[in-house]
Amino acid sequence: MIYYLGLIGIAAFSITGVIAAGKKDMDIFSIILLGVVTALGGGTLRDIILDTSPVFWIADLCYIWVSIIASVLTFFLVRHVGHVLRLLLFIDAFGLSLFTVLATEKTIDLGFSNPVAVLMGVVTGIAGGMIRDILAGRMPLLLGKEFYATPALLGAILFTLLGYYFPLHDFNRLYAIGVIFILRASAIQWGLYYPRWLTYREKK
Amino acid sequence: MIYYLGLIGIAAFSITGVIAAGKKDMDIFSIILLGVVTALGGGTLRDIILDTSPVFWIADLCYIWVSIIASVLTFFLVRHVGHVLRLLLFIDAFGLSLFTVLATEKTIDLGFSNPVAVLMGVVTGIAGGMIRDILAGRMPLLLGKEFYATPALLGAILFTLLGYYFPLHDFNRLYAIGVIFILRASAIQWGLYYPRWLTYREKK
Amino acid sequence: MIYYLGLIGIAAFSITGVIAAGKKDMDIFSIILLGVVTALGGGTLRDIILDTSPVFWIADLCYIWVSIIASVLTFFLVRHVGHVLRLLLFIDAFGLSLFTVLATEKTIDLGFSNPVAVLMGVVTGIAGGMIRDILAGRMPLLLGKEFYATPALLGAILFTLLGYYFPLHDFNRLYAIGVIFILRASAIQWGLYYPRWLTYREKK
Repeated sequence: MIYYLGLIGIAAFSITGVIAAGKKDMDIFSIILLGVVTALGGGTLRDIILDTSPVFWIADLCYIWVSIIASVLTFFLVRHVGHVLRLLLFIDAFGLSLFTVLATEKTIDLGFSNPVAVLMGVVTGIAGGMIRDILAGRMPLLLGKEFYATPALLGAILFTLLGYYFPLHDFNRLYAIGVIFILRASAIQWGLYYPRWLTYREKK
Repeated sequence: MIYYLGLIGIAAFSITGVIAAGKKDMDIFSIILLGVVTALGGGTLRDIILDTSPVFWIADLCYIWVSIIASVLTFFLVRHVGHVLRLLLFIDAFGLSLFTVLATEKTIDLGFSNPVAVLMGVVTGIAGGMIRDILAGRMPLLLGKEFYATPALLGAILFTLLGYYFPLHDFNRLYAIGVIFILRASAIQWGLYYPRWLTYREKK
Repeated sequence: MIYYLGLIGIAAFSITGVIAAGKKDMDIFSIILLGVVTALGGGTLRDIILDTSPVFWIADLCYIWVSIIASVLTFFLVRHVGHVLRLLLFIDAFGLSLFTVLATEKTIDLGFSNPVAVLMGVVTGIAGGMIRDILAGRMPLLLGKEFYATPALLGAILFTLLGYYFPLHDFNRLYAIGVIFILRASAIQWGLYYPRWLTYREKK
């Protein structure tokens, strides 16, 4: 089931890559590249930093194919859909939740310590989106005012704590994914911010 | 001969790095860095993802020296040359052709499957230029309307097909390089685009 | 002592990451991420390219903690401080000096040749700052008119020469760090540029 969750996450991030970075008149192959890079970028960075070889999409070509198919479908379907920005944010939240938790788990399974696992979870969750935003020349979503990386952090910490105290519990993964998604979705829906004293301000 | 082709590709990409990313008053060492990063970036990414160690320019310092020398020559010669943008596009097309095919071949030689080889060929071919464009704060060439990544894709696929059906044929490499260069050069010369239905458009 | 120098360099780069990339209303966790990525980015790239596994901040979690603490302190203290840009440049110069020399040394200790060590020293020194500037959507410091990468290059060359001629001398490291810092600080203070013929200019 983890495996299929992973593929769904790949599809979700491919969709956001196409919609967020796609620009008018860009050709279909460039669009596919944007989708693929967004979807595979975070996990590739994780595998490179952890030096697990080969990276996940070389070991199993399914990831690439799912990403390509999702990108192509998005390419054609987006013409028939009206306002997608809001939907896009929720799909992105879904990809963020899945990737953060799966990467945290993979890092623990590879024998690294919990702090490293939390960090790699967050990095994997947000890196694909940051690469997408850099390629698109946009301000990274991460750097806005709303909660973005924070839900990933809390979910990754929750997952490592659950794994420590209830190692045999099968639903740890789902709890953590759910917490990240609900926190991020709430942030989108109600514009959750940090309190003012926890936001950056320079002296005038 | 592959080896010298590789060095020529390095020189070509160094030249494009200097001309495309160089800005007035930038010092010579920053210029060299731009040239070197553009020329070595794609292959470095390939070697890191495939986990071949050491990366090619550590194993053989010639690549760095060729890149430095090409960058320095460009630095001085560009003052005496008028419109270079058009020439630049053709040099870039040449580097793209060489790098895509050589990376596809290297990936196959390392024992990876053909789809991975095609993907790594395309990634290696376009990554250096994308890094250059990000450093220069420009819209990546890749993301324009003209054919850019597509010739690399077609050439890489052709090369793997040729390798499959005519494994002993010595000129496979040249055919594939030629196809990429001709396709890309045609795109520059006559502004080849994808048909309208294969370009990105959102619903109004 | 090298170890503590490294930690000081990490703290210095975390501070510059927060101040240079921090934008009004950004939340504290995004700020910490910017600080951490700036501080650890250069060394991570070095370890990935040299394929030393695990990367330094996985092998020793102190680096991450120092970076987080420095980022949090900067986050709160920057509200009470007036003009920081100038101070920031000097802190950045300090991080640049430390990272360049320590990375050059580490590369030599790993058995690579001197030219590779010089290159990796420069890359490690400047990469964190370039990542920071790309994330912040700013023109990289590197690409301005003033000396930036050049002091790192000269210091790294000096360090390898000292190591070659005086292999047993304990202060080689400090000499090289001092030379980089003084050159870069002079460049900031007096606006040192390359002579005009060594700066980039195209033909009109």
